Amino acid sequence: MEFSVEEVAALVNGTVIGDTSQSLTGISSLAEAVPGDISFLANDKYAPYLAETKASAVLVAKEQDVKNLVQIVVKDPDFAFAKVVEAFVPTVGQPEPGIHPTAVIGDGVQLGNNVAIGPYTVITNNAKIGDNSVIYPHVYIGDECEIGSDCILFPHVTIREKSIIGNRVILHSGVVCGSDGFGYASVEGVHNKIPQVGVVIIEDDVEIGANTTIDRARFGRTFIGEGTKIDNMVQVAHNAEIGAHCIIVAQSGVAGSTHIGHHTTIAGQSGISGHLQIGDFVVVAARSGVTKNIPSNTAVMGFPAQDLKSQKAKEVAMRRLPGTVSTVKELEKRLAALEAELEALKGGEA
Amino acid sequence: MEFSVEEVAALVNGTVIGDTSQSLTGISSLAEAVPGDISFLANDKYAPYLAETKASAVLVAKEQDVKNLVQIVVKDPDFAFAKVVEAFVPTVGQPEPGIHPTAVIGDGVQLGNNVAIGPYTVITNNAKIGDNSVIYPHVYIGDECEIGSDCILFPHVTIREKSIIGNRVILHSGVVCGSDGFGYASVEGVHNKIPQVGVVIIEDDVEIGANTTIDRARFGRTFIGEGTKIDNMVQVAHNAEIGAHCIIVAQSGVAGSTHIGHHTTIAGQSGISGHLQIGDFVVVAARSGVTKNIPSNTAVMGFPAQDLKSQKAKEVAMRRLPGTVSTVKELEKRLAALEAELEALKGGEA
Amino acid sequence: MEFSVEEVAALVNGTVIGDTSQSLTGISSLAEAVPGDISFLANDKYAPYLAETKASAVLVAKEQDVKNLVQIVVKDPDFAFAKVVEAFVPTVGQPEPGIHPTAVIGDGVQLGNNVAIGPYTVITNNAKIGDNSVIYPHVYIGDECEIGSDCILFPHVTIREKSIIGNRVILHSGVVCGSDGFGYASVEGVHNKIPQVGVVIIEDDVEIGANTTIDRARFGRTFIGEGTKIDNMVQVAHNAEIGAHCIIVAQSGVAGSTHIGHHTTIAGQSGISGHLQIGDFVVVAARSGVTKNIPSNTAVMGFPAQDLKSQKAKEVAMRRLPGTVSTVKELEKRLAALEAELEALKGGEA
Repeated sequence: MEFSVEEVAALVNGTVIGDTSQSLTGISSLAEAVPGDISFLANDKYAPYLAETKASAVLVAKEQDVKNLVQIVVKDPDFAFAKVVEAFVPTVGQPEPGIHPTAVIGDGVQLGNNVAIGPYTVITNNAKIGDNSVIYPHVYIGDECEIGSDCILFPHVTIREKSIIGNRVILHSGVVCGSDGFGYASVEGVHNKIPQVGVVIIEDDVEIGANTTIDRARFGRTFIGEGTKIDNMVQVAHNAEIGAHCIIVAQSGVAGSTHIGHHTTIAGQSGISGHLQIGDFVVVAARSGVTKNIPSNTAVMGFPAQDLKSQKAKEVAMRRLPGTVSTVKELEKRLAALEAELEALKGGEA
Repeated sequence: MEFSVEEVAALVNGTVIGDTSQSLTGISSLAEAVPGDISFLANDKYAPYLAETKASAVLVAKEQDVKNLVQIVVKDPDFAFAKVVEAFVPTVGQPEPGIHPTAVIGDGVQLGNNVAIGPYTVITNNAKIGDNSVIYPHVYIGDECEIGSDCILFPHVTIREKSIIGNRVILHSGVVCGSDGFGYASVEGVHNKIPQVGVVIIEDDVEIGANTTIDRARFGRTFIGEGTKIDNMVQVAHNAEIGAHCIIVAQSGVAGSTHIGHHTTIAGQSGISGHLQIGDFVVVAARSGVTKNIPSNTAVMGFPAQDLKSQKAKEVAMRRLPGTVSTVKELEKRLAALEAELEALKGGEA
Repeated sequence: MEFSVEEVAALVNGTVIGDTSQSLTGISSLAEAVPGDISFLANDKYAPYLAETKASAVLVAKEQDVKNLVQIVVKDPDFAFAKVVEAFVPTVGQPEPGIHPTAVIGDGVQLGNNVAIGPYTVITNNAKIGDNSVIYPHVYIGDECEIGSDCILFPHVTIREKSIIGNRVILHSGVVCGSDGFGYASVEGVHNKIPQVGVVIIEDDVEIGANTTIDRARFGRTFIGEGTKIDNMVQVAHNAEIGAHCIIVAQSGVAGSTHIGHHTTIAGQSGISGHLQIGDFVVVAARSGVTKNIPSNTAVMGFPAQDLKSQKAKEVAMRRLPGTVSTVKELEKRLAALEAELEALKGGEA
């Protein structure tokens, strides 16, 4: 693909500083760009690269003091760059609309217009799939599932029976949606399986990363709200409810029946215990273990997770701990010496 | 399905308090119940919901002081409710008994009576599968594997060659059983693969969660004992042995050659180092890292994991740590002042 | 298979102590060996087993003082034993060379000589696969992927479009290579997907464990260097670069854009934050969380990860912490008593 700087600026609603006729043929980061590439500056950390980049144009949030650099000033360079990438890079490898002859489609399945179903995908009885959804090879969609329109299900996704999935949902390879929750009634040392007869509901515009697992509810539902984005290898246990527009980073886990509000961020490798209430706009730092309810608009870190200020004070104190322990030992000696001296003084007075 | 209170009471061997003829048509939690539902109280935390529930009957462990509530008193409401759920909710979406015409079955494969094999499942040479087992689509069962009777293998399960699996075993989607253990002989900076030629043995009544991995042994066996239940995304490394009736919660890992006794519980996101001996009836709290042998009947937490009492004392001390550090600094000043004063006093005496 | 001690010694370039004509028919660990087995001693921890082993020969690094034990002295018993295992245990269950009639092969796919492709594998347009590579059933290889020669891809591997994979690479079941990186531009509380149009490059002799995920780059590449071995359920995020001959143990994660040198070891359940530089020959202990750049030849542990000495001092101090807190409280009392006494003394003098 080839675009002029002017065409790109129009696409992203930006203002050009420099030559608008320059031809752009590729996309890249500032450090790796070659002539013809368009790049972007979203993080000031990378500003030093501007002076040396070979990019032919750079998306920026405000004019940068760099000579001879063609700049396109936009509100949000990250977001603008995403649009540019879509224009430059055509999607490859998607199954074509239509049903591959090897797909196995059960009784009563309803398929929307323009659906693409790849080889060896299995869709069992009474499932529904909306318009324009793309189902890659080797996907399994169980009985009575509902998948909305404009979804993308990558190879090796498993959707167990009765799951309900909204529109524009993206499920990456190896996602398991609707596996049984982990529940047993233990009687005299034997763990008896508690049937998990609830469902999974995933709202519109959710994206779920590779090999993530979302268990079906014991009864009722496990729920992922609109616009929430979940990374790879995240565990969402039965009856968990996650609100809209959350971010959950890789290898985190949400235990059973925990409810999380909207716009909450859980950084990587964190865990949230079961049966908790986590508010809106909460931030859980990486590798935290949350063991208590967290009110809205709070940032927590550590294990057990505390508010940032307490946790940071604890970490500073811990770093100094070996020194503190030595100081205490020394104080103990000096105090004993003082006590002895004072005893001696008093004796002298007696 | 529809049952009377009396019929349900008979099913769970319970005693009815209230109207036994009431008709029951669904199941639910106390909070979400609608008229016609049966619910249960297993955790006293939820007792306040009894006064407001719309459930038409509730399974309880002892009579509750709530007016006009139809109660069925049973020994274990959790276990009883599981039985009720099975009666109310028919299983949907299982492949029918028989071999789907698209399944690929190798030479010398032995299939029991009433086995169900879904589309696109591949069973290679000399594997055996017992009576009534249900194999969903897209399952891979390798050479010389033995699967018992009444098992359920969900879509996208992989069983590598020579694995031996007992009766009534449930393997959820994405389980990988028998992948190579992680072993290398490093010579001059190059890691040479050590062949992993052992097997995986899984005993009767084991359930393994979605995307969990059980590596085959270097030689000998990796072993999961009878009745043990493993949650999603758990890693069991080569030559690990896990005893009977254990519970291992999501995202935990057991490193190579560690042996775990029976009735041991490992809570979520924990790790057990390699070559350890963990006893029977051990409890490892969530997010613990176990680095030493643990005797039977012990509860441990933290990293490195300690007994509960030591770890809790440590946590309390840590929470107070910033205060303690300030106190030490202040003590240091006061001590220096005292020392100076005493020196002055002694000078005055001289 | 059956070999004489002499034949095995020749295979591993070892020196026999004892009867060279003894016949060997199996392989085992020292503890589990039966007569006819060959075993090995790689870790001195297991030396006490030598006196009791029933093995008919043992690979050792130096002569052991055990009577009547046939010993084969080699430089590296672990490595030597791996060679012996290969000789004794034939590979079973691999698909035969040739393309299974059910495999779906796209347009323009180039297959080398002697390639084996199992049932229901899907290879889409313009992918290339080198000589002798073995592709198990249920593998997905996307458009324009390049797979080298002598590779093994186990069942249920997903390779998304444009991934480039070297020679002698082993990918275990459930590996997802080339899934979209986790990147969004958040505008007014809505997370807009940033297209991930880069690739994954995996060099020669890499092995990747079951259910591990390697995300494709935002643009540019995610990179795994020659000879690096990655265990099960490891997350490698977009634009991460991992050098040659590294070891990454199960359930660890490497966040986006972090660069790791060569010969670095990351033990199990660790996490490395994004945008870091980790050097060569670094060792990250198990369950560490690395939040800063790490220079080469450094060992770190803990969270936040510190050098071993600091971290161990911290752990010792933490273990003593409850005692230290008590000591501080006691010192406070004794100091107050001293201050009072001194005041009294001074008063007495006045």
